[in-house]
Amino acid sequence: MKYLLSTFLVATTSASVIAQTNVLSPEVETTARQLMAEALDSDLAWEIVESLTTEVGPRLGGSEAEARAREWGRELGEELGFDRISVEEFELPFWERGDMSITMTAPYQQALYGTALGGSGASPQNGELEAEIAYFRTVDDLVAVEDSSLIGRIAFVDGDAIVPSQNGEGYGPANQRRRIGWQHAQRAGAEALVVRSVGSDSHRFPHTGMMTAQGSEWAEIPVIAVSNPDADHLRRLHAGGNSIRLDVHSTAGWQGERTSGNVVLDLIGREKPEEIVLIGGHLDSWDLGTGAVDDGAGIAITTAAATLIGRLPQRPRRTIRVVMFGAEEVGLVGAQDYARVHAAELANHQVATESDFGAGNIWQLASNVSEAGTLAVDAIGKIIAPLGIIRGGSDVPGSGPDISPMAARGVPTINLRQNGTDYFDLHHTPDDTLDKIDPDQLAQNVAAYVVFAYLAAELDVQFRE
Amino acid sequence: MKYLLSTFLVATTSASVIAQTNVLSPEVETTARQLMAEALDSDLAWEIVESLTTEVGPRLGGSEAEARAREWGRELGEELGFDRISVEEFELPFWERGDMSITMTAPYQQALYGTALGGSGASPQNGELEAEIAYFRTVDDLVAVEDSSLIGRIAFVDGDAIVPSQNGEGYGPANQRRRIGWQHAQRAGAEALVVRSVGSDSHRFPHTGMMTAQGSEWAEIPVIAVSNPDADHLRRLHAGGNSIRLDVHSTAGWQGERTSGNVVLDLIGREKPEEIVLIGGHLDSWDLGTGAVDDGAGIAITTAAATLIGRLPQRPRRTIRVVMFGAEEVGLVGAQDYARVHAAELANHQVATESDFGAGNIWQLASNVSEAGTLAVDAIGKIIAPLGIIRGGSDVPGSGPDISPMAARGVPTINLRQNGTDYFDLHHTPDDTLDKIDPDQLAQNVAAYVVFAYLAAELDVQFRE
Repeated sequence: MKYLLSTFLVATTSASVIAQTNVLSPEVETTARQLMAEALDSDLAWEIVESLTTEVGPRLGGSEAEARAREWGRELGEELGFDRISVEEFELPFWERGDMSITMTAPYQQALYGTALGGSGASPQNGELEAEIAYFRTVDDLVAVEDSSLIGRIAFVDGDAIVPSQNGEGYGPANQRRRIGWQHAQRAGAEALVVRSVGSDSHRFPHTGMMTAQGSEWAEIPVIAVSNPDADHLRRLHAGGNSIRLDVHSTAGWQGERTSGNVVLDLIGREKPEEIVLIGGHLDSWDLGTGAVDDGAGIAITTAAATLIGRLPQRPRRTIRVVMFGAEEVGLVGAQDYARVHAAELANHQVATESDFGAGNIWQLASNVSEAGTLAVDAIGKIIAPLGIIRGGSDVPGSGPDISPMAARGVPTINLRQNGTDYFDLHHTPDDTLDKIDPDQLAQNVAAYVVFAYLAAELDVQFRE
Repeated sequence: MKYLLSTFLVATTSASVIAQTNVLSPEVETTARQLMAEALDSDLAWEIVESLTTEVGPRLGGSEAEARAREWGRELGEELGFDRISVEEFELPFWERGDMSITMTAPYQQALYGTALGGSGASPQNGELEAEIAYFRTVDDLVAVEDSSLIGRIAFVDGDAIVPSQNGEGYGPANQRRRIGWQHAQRAGAEALVVRSVGSDSHRFPHTGMMTAQGSEWAEIPVIAVSNPDADHLRRLHAGGNSIRLDVHSTAGWQGERTSGNVVLDLIGREKPEEIVLIGGHLDSWDLGTGAVDDGAGIAITTAAATLIGRLPQRPRRTIRVVMFGAEEVGLVGAQDYARVHAAELANHQVATESDFGAGNIWQLASNVSEAGTLAVDAIGKIIAPLGIIRGGSDVPGSGPDISPMAARGVPTINLRQNGTDYFDLHHTPDDTLDKIDPDQLAQNVAAYVVFAYLAAELDVQFRE
């Protein structure tokens, strides 16, 4: 398949319609098409994500493993010939999962598959936490609960599995039970909160993920997500009129300050080195899987794309920067630190985007850039159309979570939107492992990124208003 | 879909070609076709498997949960109107999983997803079991190892994931590492044995299952199966030249004698009550999932089929017996007990079969019966052909594990072979839960079983030579 598609792409170069729009010269268009064809034939992204997930493994923000990942990123940047490499460290509060178990003790004994949510408290150190559940069909039902009405009970928020979709539409609403459920369970005096995992799969994996602090306060009670099949089981038992009791054990908690950091790899622009086209992903992962689709893939796609550009006879006009953000999962800490440290430089960030929605094919190119920049993105869209990518509107929000702090400070963004139909099957579970990545789809991503990054850095177009 | 198919089946009754063979009368054929149509429209099997997995849950052979399952089976038999119900208890040695963990400690720290295999020993009570692995690409490589050559090491047998197939062909060969690997690891002095799970999935679930005793000896060392993605991970690290160390903790072991039992539900034959057509499944399950496809489905399919026959105006000529076998997973203990207790009666067992290969559509009807019986099975095959079932040869072995002891004593068998393409994705894992069963495919199974059981009990044909 790769061979045929590459042949087709190179073959169409001579019959270009893009150059006729005068946005880009025939030479530049030819180079872009050659990079795209090369990307489709390259295993580089696969090798990068294989190395990260295998040699480093899980890498929770602030952990020793994440520090090894930064060293891995620095060495990789050197090996791949980037011009400038910096590791920019920062401190953050460190939450650790510890041990946990959740067991149904009535109507009969059965181990459930659960995991603590990020920011969860521990169960009492020298005591048992075993209680009857109070069943809530939705998180809204829990939000409506009266203060102190759940004393001596464990709140269980059922909800529903996410409906799988290309754009992951169901994630935000479903995620409310993970985000704010604890605030209401704790207010009502519950001993613990158990929620249905925020995921679209029907496997017996719990999905972890960060809760939302209330001001600077975090949960004092254990907050546990259980897999969809386990939540289904509790729902059926509840519907059958059974009184359900759970035993919850967790040693989760905050462990003081630790170090995280961003790894910044630059190909320095030959004419406008101060102007930056930023692509990237996040280097940290949750601790349950090995962070393959979230977000080893994003690291691999963007690093591979920049590397292919770095092998051209000359650098593009602008600087291409790959940022491997640290500590994304635990609260976009690296993204905020980047925006802070590089505050003075942000006005020179021409355009930015992140790959952080798995490893599925890109299906849409959306943008939020200047009028002139929009024409350039249109031209990019025409070149990558044979990859199955449609041009989206300029009103599609989002370009990756780590871009949001700089976007809020005026950095223009584009979005190469991936098909995330299976993303929330794997997201934040033990099942996020290398085997879930399709090498051909990974290469399609690199092909789109390489065209975007090359042209955004090469064209004499202002993406800023 | 159900409605249309049922209509079709009833419509074809008048244009029968089967009755012309004189194996069965037009009235009997009409009844068989009506039962088949009814089965396709019935939710009874689904309700049974939902109840078993939800109200009883996991039910390891010999456990208190399996005792609850027998009580559930007895009550179900009464509720569904069986004529005679007996619970036939027996004793067996009881192995319990206990707690376990397996952690990679070098080249870095990472929790692996594993589970003890049935019959595994424990790790030292007051010590640590942490050692470098000795890597074996296949179980044959381990079998070839010299005595005492693995002292101070943990043996890891890699092997490969099972290739998924309709008939589960890959299971037997792959299962050697689970069955006999321990005998060679222990002989060579290894501190523990870790094997790649015997499964076809790429999810992070370990597959448990019983090992094979050596004479009357069981493993004294811990024997752990890890998920396919975890085994892939170790393989890649090994290929990269890393020294891999594992920490293994397990409290598994034998806990003395416990009680298990078979539940026998009879529809007593109106003319030849002593002649028995036996169908069934096994009531016990492994403890990790809730035993939905293995073998709640088999219990549900066969009980539902017999129940539909029990609602006819009169009983068939022969007795239809549903056996819910106990303690199958832990060594066919219920099957052996049945063959022993019913030894005198076995000569009156006309034909027997078990449903124990998941809940996928039946695709083939195979048989191993008398010449006259083969003609009757041919006629059954013609009636169930619209369900997508082909007639297989008379040389296909196997009719369910619990039937094997009676088959060895001369009981004729048939086999309604299910599509097991996804069976070894789920088999013996935590993921064997109700949601994995497709209600339409379950009903297709009941439709085939009801035709077989009714005609085998009604026709004046000897299935024995």
